[in-house]
Amino acid sequence: MNILTISLEKKKGSPMYGQIYEYIRDEIQSGKILAGEKLPSSRTLASHLGVSRSTVDLAYEQLLAEGYMISQPCRGYFACEVDQLYQIPRVNSKYKESIPEKQKYRYDFSVSGIDRDGFPYQTWKKISKNVLAEDDGRLFQLGDSQGEESFRQEIASYLHHARGVNCKPEQIIVGAGNDYLLLLLHIILGMGWKIAMDNPTYLSAYQDFKKMGYEVFPLEPDEMGMNLQKLQKSGANLAYVMPSHQFPLGSVMPIQRRQQLLSWAAAEEDRFLIEDDYDSEFRYKGKPIPSLQGYDSRDKVIYLGTFSRSLAPAIRISYMVLPQRLLPLYWERGKNFSVTVSRVDQKIVEIFLRDGHFGRHLNRMRGIYRSKHDCLLTEMKKLRDICTVQGEHAGVHVLLKMKNGMSEEEAVRRAAKESVKVYGLSEYCVENVIEKESENEKKDMMKRLGATVLMGYATLTEDEIREAVTRLEKAWRVPACGEDNTAFFS
Amino acid sequence: MNILTISLEKKKGSPMYGQIYEYIRDEIQSGKILAGEKLPSSRTLASHLGVSRSTVDLAYEQLLAEGYMISQPCRGYFACEVDQLYQIPRVNSKYKESIPEKQKYRYDFSVSGIDRDGFPYQTWKKISKNVLAEDDGRLFQLGDSQGEESFRQEIASYLHHARGVNCKPEQIIVGAGNDYLLLLLHIILGMGWKIAMDNPTYLSAYQDFKKMGYEVFPLEPDEMGMNLQKLQKSGANLAYVMPSHQFPLGSVMPIQRRQQLLSWAAAEEDRFLIEDDYDSEFRYKGKPIPSLQGYDSRDKVIYLGTFSRSLAPAIRISYMVLPQRLLPLYWERGKNFSVTVSRVDQKIVEIFLRDGHFGRHLNRMRGIYRSKHDCLLTEMKKLRDICTVQGEHAGVHVLLKMKNGMSEEEAVRRAAKESVKVYGLSEYCVENVIEKESENEKKDMMKRLGATVLMGYATLTEDEIREAVTRLEKAWRVPACGEDNTAFFS
Repeated sequence: MNILTISLEKKKGSPMYGQIYEYIRDEIQSGKILAGEKLPSSRTLASHLGVSRSTVDLAYEQLLAEGYMISQPCRGYFACEVDQLYQIPRVNSKYKESIPEKQKYRYDFSVSGIDRDGFPYQTWKKISKNVLAEDDGRLFQLGDSQGEESFRQEIASYLHHARGVNCKPEQIIVGAGNDYLLLLLHIILGMGWKIAMDNPTYLSAYQDFKKMGYEVFPLEPDEMGMNLQKLQKSGANLAYVMPSHQFPLGSVMPIQRRQQLLSWAAAEEDRFLIEDDYDSEFRYKGKPIPSLQGYDSRDKVIYLGTFSRSLAPAIRISYMVLPQRLLPLYWERGKNFSVTVSRVDQKIVEIFLRDGHFGRHLNRMRGIYRSKHDCLLTEMKKLRDICTVQGEHAGVHVLLKMKNGMSEEEAVRRAAKESVKVYGLSEYCVENVIEKESENEKKDMMKRLGATVLMGYATLTEDEIREAVTRLEKAWRVPACGEDNTAFFS
Repeated sequence: MNILTISLEKKKGSPMYGQIYEYIRDEIQSGKILAGEKLPSSRTLASHLGVSRSTVDLAYEQLLAEGYMISQPCRGYFACEVDQLYQIPRVNSKYKESIPEKQKYRYDFSVSGIDRDGFPYQTWKKISKNVLAEDDGRLFQLGDSQGEESFRQEIASYLHHARGVNCKPEQIIVGAGNDYLLLLLHIILGMGWKIAMDNPTYLSAYQDFKKMGYEVFPLEPDEMGMNLQKLQKSGANLAYVMPSHQFPLGSVMPIQRRQQLLSWAAAEEDRFLIEDDYDSEFRYKGKPIPSLQGYDSRDKVIYLGTFSRSLAPAIRISYMVLPQRLLPLYWERGKNFSVTVSRVDQKIVEIFLRDGHFGRHLNRMRGIYRSKHDCLLTEMKKLRDICTVQGEHAGVHVLLKMKNGMSEEEAVRRAAKESVKVYGLSEYCVENVIEKESENEKKDMMKRLGATVLMGYATLTEDEIREAVTRLEKAWRVPACGEDNTAFFS
């Protein structure tokens, strides 16, 4: 038995028991105290080191708890065998992430951002402050996994009045973003679904579905939206649509196609529609078009909406409205997953809705976006011989169809040279073509779509829009034949 | 062609164009205007109704957009065929959720709550206010899908110092709760994994895995924790463990078993350990036991931690540390899923960590919980002939092993009569026994575990603990034979 002469330093930062613990642990780990070796009793060691017995007891308890030694009744303490392979390798946790060099553009017509100054900071801060000040602690207890009922009531009422959505609060599930809600839907619906989407589409949802392991059928839409014939032929039983404002094409689905889709879903028990109503708040002519869900009397539409678009992307609050018939499945499979939005944030948005701030905010944003939209369209008139504007009057982006023979890639590249970022429509097209269909389908489709670029105007100011369009004109108005034009004919 | 005499009400809330739109829409929907019927030109209708032409244009555009009519060049407007089946059924959205009647207990030894007064409201509110005041708008733009880098750096540094976890910020994924992170892990790892868990265990994780479609093997632990032999035999390739404080048993896994588990994981390419370090912050004797991840030199541990337990359940911030080797899979499959925690909350907790508030908060909470823990243990001495306390010194709950012949169910029921809620250990046992093993395994296991109840003390005050234990004594100290005792022998 070792007597263990440990040199304890009274001035050292670590407590006495910690020094004893560390010394013995290191001795055992390094093999200086051998496995099976008896250790002194705590009384003996305490007296030897001139410390209180409770100090040694504390060190021993830690060593016992971590398995460095064992205690055998009436026999004492013994060192355990410790595999040399596993020691804590203290690596330096200082770390610099290598951020990939992004090309910086002076003007980025991003299609996913929002107006930077549009967020109602002052109101948000005020409500936020009040919510925290008035809270009695309940907001920091775990809440309903679906989201708070009072919040869901406000959402139901908003959706009813603004979007014609008919639902009870029990059908609403609050979640931190659409990606999360699709994950939850994946758990609720399980595997084996075949999902139809438009092509081009909102790629993030497409990727989500693929990563969940679903078979996804990207279908080229016709002039009314999702192609019914292709849908039938695909064998899909779940169709993901954006009837109020298709992304990226910007088209609105007419009521006939909505009804056809609802009939398609109603024809089989296991068919559903996912309606992503992502930016329905922003429509500049007429009033917002009612949701597909509002027309659905067969309980077939899964409705998705978000505050990320209307408030701010960093506000991670979306909601999903389930058809009544899916509620039992949700209770069985999904209710277990705790809510992903903090109660503080839920309460803030609830008050935002309840007290009319949201309505006022939307009106203000519609004004801001309409003004930017009109500014962009006015400016684009200069380029009317170069390209045609499409998909206007809604959302926060437009499409430009090139008509000067320039390819999409060329248009994007030339704009980039002028430090203007525009987005090629083909970026939103899914590569995979439907099985059995020819490899040339995508090529054909791209030909039909023509050379088209997307321009989002939410993040730019009107001055920036004007300056950027001037640069675009410079980029795109080129001699019909020239050094730079080789790409046109390749 | 109808001339459409619409009685417009100037005082009505809805705008003029809306009344025209609604009138025509209703006429088409009800079949009063037939499909194919020509509608007046906007000029004609405007003049007929005595309104400006732009008002009618607006109504027409809405009708065109929604598909109620079509415009044929040089011919005019025509009503479309509208399937009668789908009209918006305006249901009353006022709704009262039927909340199931919960038995209200005066004293609830909940094992999942936290101390209500422990949350650092003042600091939280102050930081929250500053964060909002100082923000230049960036916090409301969408951030990194893994969580902000500066936040991940703080987490990495905290984990290194407090938990011995070795990781770079790039290995950390921030998510809104453990359920969400397990969902994301499900996407990263894909299907086909066989998961071993202790039985009894943290049921929420068990249910999450089952709902994701995994095969789960609940294994009865031995005195060191997860049973290695059973683990080998099960064929599992993913083991979910809580080495720092097993829930619900409260045991600490000794270093030998940790090393055996790490060796088990290292033996095959496709084996991993999930370490759920859910309440490692709370340990009342000695210092916190280093994480399993810290001992792992083979890059095999997926580490889960949360601020829900240490701060407040409603703070939906957890984090997952992926082994380096899983990062490419995360980038490929998981990076697409946007972050589920708002940047404001990330920033608040980042400052909380950075400025030492979190350390101070933990010390304070350890003091509060230790005091409650000691109070409970002192009070329980009165009942030492009735039950034995186990799993103390860590976390915020203890186990009571009944030794007066009372069954678990009886102990829970009798406590309930005194309005005290305690939790039967069998509630945390998984029903499913491993295939091929006898149906009696669970029964045998329950026999071995004995009549045991769980008591969480986080949510109760010390006065409440004292009063509740007095009631428990009344509930459980019963004549050896009596009217109430029939259950003992059934």
